[in-house]
Amino acid sequence: MKFRRSGRLVDLTNYMLTHPHVLVPLTFFSERYESAKSSISEDLAIIKQTFEQQGIGTLLTVPGAAGGVKYIPRISADEAKRYVHKLGESLANAERVLPGGYLYFTDILGKPSILSTAGKIFASAFSAREIDVVMTVATKGIPLAYAVASYLDVPVVIVRKDNKVTEGSTVSINYASGSSNRIQTMSLAKRSLKTGSKVLIIDDFMKAGGTINGMINLLDEFNATVAGIGVLVEAEEVNERLVDEYMSLLTLSAINLKEKAVEIRDGNYMSFL
Amino acid sequence: MKFRRSGRLVDLTNYMLTHPHVLVPLTFFSERYESAKSSISEDLAIIKQTFEQQGIGTLLTVPGAAGGVKYIPRISADEAKRYVHKLGESLANAERVLPGGYLYFTDILGKPSILSTAGKIFASAFSAREIDVVMTVATKGIPLAYAVASYLDVPVVIVRKDNKVTEGSTVSINYASGSSNRIQTMSLAKRSLKTGSKVLIIDDFMKAGGTINGMINLLDEFNATVAGIGVLVEAEEVNERLVDEYMSLLTLSAINLKEKAVEIRDGNYMSFL
Repeated sequence: MKFRRSGRLVDLTNYMLTHPHVLVPLTFFSERYESAKSSISEDLAIIKQTFEQQGIGTLLTVPGAAGGVKYIPRISADEAKRYVHKLGESLANAERVLPGGYLYFTDILGKPSILSTAGKIFASAFSAREIDVVMTVATKGIPLAYAVASYLDVPVVIVRKDNKVTEGSTVSINYASGSSNRIQTMSLAKRSLKTGSKVLIIDDFMKAGGTINGMINLLDEFNATVAGIGVLVEAEEVNERLVDEYMSLLTLSAINLKEKAVEIRDGNYMSFL
Repeated sequence: MKFRRSGRLVDLTNYMLTHPHVLVPLTFFSERYESAKSSISEDLAIIKQTFEQQGIGTLLTVPGAAGGVKYIPRISADEAKRYVHKLGESLANAERVLPGGYLYFTDILGKPSILSTAGKIFASAFSAREIDVVMTVATKGIPLAYAVASYLDVPVVIVRKDNKVTEGSTVSINYASGSSNRIQTMSLAKRSLKTGSKVLIIDDFMKAGGTINGMINLLDEFNATVAGIGVLVEAEEVNERLVDEYMSLLTLSAINLKEKAVEIRDGNYMSFL
C-alpha cells in the first residue's frame, strides 16, 4: 500500500510503540510502505528526535545486513519524579489506613493509566540489562508486572501460593514470610520458566523481603538468575532486609494508627535512572 | 515548545495511543504544540485516516465547547480472524495436554505481545458499551483482564479465592464450580467496586461457567451490573451452560488423552465485531 510521508509517520510511530525492544529490519518497512529505505530512514530520524525530545524513549539503529531499528522505552528523570510524587500524595491518605496498620492501595494496582507509567519507569531503569522474563507472585503485583513486561516485550511468569491442576508439574519451595516469620509455600510451573533465564522480579510491596527472597530461592531451582528487583512501595521500618539490590518508587515511612496518618517518601529509584 | 508538523504527528499519535477512550480538548493540543487549532485538526484528520486504514482504531471528534477528540481502539475483523487462527494453532498442540485432560496455556497468558491483541479484540467488541471496570478472578486471567482494561482505560478489579488483610473489609459469596460442583468461596474488597458499576467480566477459560456465574452473583451484592462477558477459551462439551451471553475467541472442542490430540475451533467472537 502506498503511503504519504504523513501517514507513514503515524503508522511507523504506532508500529514502533507496539513493538518495544524488537529489532525490525528496514526492509520490513520499505515493503510495508512501498518506499525507499532512504525515505524510511528519514522518517525514523524524525520519530527518534520526537521520542527523545518528548521523553517517550529512543530509537536504536543497528547497521548491517542483520540490522534494523529498535524502540527502547525510556522515561525522563523529571517525568519519573513528577509521577512518583503524585503517586506518593495519593497514597499518603488517612483513609487508606486499614486495621492492623496496613495501607490499602489495591485500587492503584488496578489502574492501567497509573500502572503503565510505573511499568515504563522500571522498564527504563532496567533497559540495559538482559532480561528474559518478568516474575511476580500472585495476586496484587500481577498487573504491575504485566505493565513492566509490556515495555520490555518479555513474558510474565506468575509464582503461586496454591497449586492448580492446569499448571502441570510444579517446583515448590518453603519460605519464611519476613513480616510474620510464618513458613509458607510458593510454587512455579516447570514449563513456565526455561533453565538459565534472566529474571526481573517485580512486586507491589516489600517489607523485610521474605517473599522476594523466596522467589530468588525458587530461581535457583531453575538455574535462573536475578536480573533485577523492582517494587512499587517498600516499608522503611525493617530490622533486617533479606534482599540486597532493589529499586523502589516509594518508601512507606510510617503509619500512625491513632491519628491515621501516613508518611510516604521517595524510594531509591533516582539512582537507577 | 514549537513543533513542525512531522514531529507533531509523531507526538500526537503517541498521545492518542496512550490515552484511549479519553476525550482530549483541542485546546490541550494547541497549547502543547503552540499551534492553531486548525493545524491540529488537519493533523488529527491524517491520524484518523491512517488509524482507520491500518486497522488501529478510529478518532472520534466531539464538537462544541466541551468537545475534543477521543481515540477508540478497534481491530478489523480480518486481523482478529488471523490472530485467533494463529492462537488456535499454537494451542492445538499435543504437548499442551496435561494429566486429567487439561490444556496448558499459562505461557500464552503471560505474553504481552499476544495478550495485547486479545485485549484489543475484546475492547473493540465492547467499545460501544458503557464500562466502568473490568473484573476477573485470580490468578491466570489477570494479565488478559489488564490488557483489555488498558484499551478501555478503566481499572481492573480482582476477585480472590482467598482473603488478605491488606484488602480491608470484603464481600464473600459461595459458588459451585461448574466442572467439579465443589462449593468454593470468592471475595472482593468492598472498597474496590463502587455501587452501581457497569462491569465487563474477563476470564481466560470457561467451562460450565460456574466461576463467571459466581462473579455475576457477587456483582449483585454491589448493585453492579454486567456490561459484558469475554473469555479467551471456552470448553465445548458442557451439559448446561450457566452463563447466557458471552464472547469467546476460541472453543476447545475435544482433548483426546490417549492420542494427546487437541481440537480447537473458532469461538463466537465474529458475531461481536
